[in-house]
Amino acid sequence: MTRWKLTIEFDGRDFCGWQRQDQDLTVQQAIEDAIERFSGEQVRLFVAGRTDAGVHAIAQVAHFDLNKDVEPRAVQGAINFHVRPCRVSILKAEIVPLTFHARISARARSYRYLLINRSAPLALMEGRAWHFPRPLSLAPMQEAAKLLVGIQTDFSTFRAARCQAKSPMRTLDKLDIAQDGELFTFEIESRSFLYHQVRNMVGTLTLVGTGQWSVDDFAAAFAAADRAKGGPTAPPEGLYFKSVRYDD
Amino acid sequence: MTRWKLTIEFDGRDFCGWQRQDQDLTVQQAIEDAIERFSGEQVRLFVAGRTDAGVHAIAQVAHFDLNKDVEPRAVQGAINFHVRPCRVSILKAEIVPLTFHARISARARSYRYLLINRSAPLALMEGRAWHFPRPLSLAPMQEAAKLLVGIQTDFSTFRAARCQAKSPMRTLDKLDIAQDGELFTFEIESRSFLYHQVRNMVGTLTLVGTGQWSVDDFAAAFAAADRAKGGPTAPPEGLYFKSVRYDD
Repeated sequence: MTRWKLTIEFDGRDFCGWQRQDQDLTVQQAIEDAIERFSGEQVRLFVAGRTDAGVHAIAQVAHFDLNKDVEPRAVQGAINFHVRPCRVSILKAEIVPLTFHARISARARSYRYLLINRSAPLALMEGRAWHFPRPLSLAPMQEAAKLLVGIQTDFSTFRAARCQAKSPMRTLDKLDIAQDGELFTFEIESRSFLYHQVRNMVGTLTLVGTGQWSVDDFAAAFAAADRAKGGPTAPPEGLYFKSVRYDD
Repeated sequence: MTRWKLTIEFDGRDFCGWQRQDQDLTVQQAIEDAIERFSGEQVRLFVAGRTDAGVHAIAQVAHFDLNKDVEPRAVQGAINFHVRPCRVSILKAEIVPLTFHARISARARSYRYLLINRSAPLALMEGRAWHFPRPLSLAPMQEAAKLLVGIQTDFSTFRAARCQAKSPMRTLDKLDIAQDGELFTFEIESRSFLYHQVRNMVGTLTLVGTGQWSVDDFAAAFAAADRAKGGPTAPPEGLYFKSVRYDD
């Protein structure tokens, strides 16, 4: 038996999220089915971080076990061939030790969130960024974002009701916001995230960016550790699962 | 009568190019129809630079004349409303003097060309960049590109057969190539271009990037002033009409 690690890019618009469902097409199903078509084996994919419908991936990571012996290039090519016409691409297929687990071995996960701040509708970036028409200021959002970075903090304010994590404590390593004209890019890194944490943080930061909230309001909402005190959930189309960091 | 200047973003995948046709949907038709729907007037759009099917626009410019008096914000909003669900967005609508002409008044046009150099298929950038699997080297392409920049040069090697321009002489102001990992970005500027000139230049430069041609081969092909000596035409999906420069 060989354990395979896949690095995966996908366009979230084609899928009802990552996790296999009865009804709708998901990324997990598209790739598992492609693997079965070339290998004849029914496999199960384990992913570093599940994503919701509409969320994209730049370099998601998943693993699966295969009995057959296959060349890495052949595995990559066969999945990419059979997964068409879905917009999924296997960027890399590597053999890893059986001790590797895409989710459990992960040391840190990174997300990117794209927001376009203009009144005109999006033509080129439709479904690929949050279209935000009200004027946004970068500096207060950056100031508020700094409050979130730190060791073992209670993120209940940004935790969705359906979250299954045992604890709301998380260590956020990074939340950088950059502006290039109308494009705002949020770069976020943590060992792991609560359900909807990134989208709830970004959505609440925009309240500070529009001036509806002061940075102090934001600090108070965060300290309250209460989802009811937080701001709106940013839409899925701006979110990209960017990368996973593993040891060695 | 009021002359209106529009700045336009669009996703080329939705259209059979810019120019109105009998059969297929074009950008010109989509916008002219949207204008008629809100104003009741049949107008004709004049564009800074026509583009082919599949070519995108970041900031194309066109003008038209309207008898009705309308607020600039209302014109922008009404076209954007009526042009849906096509992926076209009016970024700006401005009143300009009747002496302004989107094509004739243009002093320079800029294009961007995106190429992704990797073996894996494109998921996020499908239809939005040239997928180029063979390894490419930046430096020789940059060296060859420099040969194209200059005053009043014969570009027949990069001129498509259907080109209607009187002269093959053009002054290329800029052809910069940058690499960011797998992404190659070509930035090109000229007062005007021959038909398929950008795509023929980019396609021929890739022959140098793969090593099939030396920079000397490229120079000889350019000097020959003969399309038969040039390289392939890069596909439309990597091309973006970026901007137009006007006086004042």
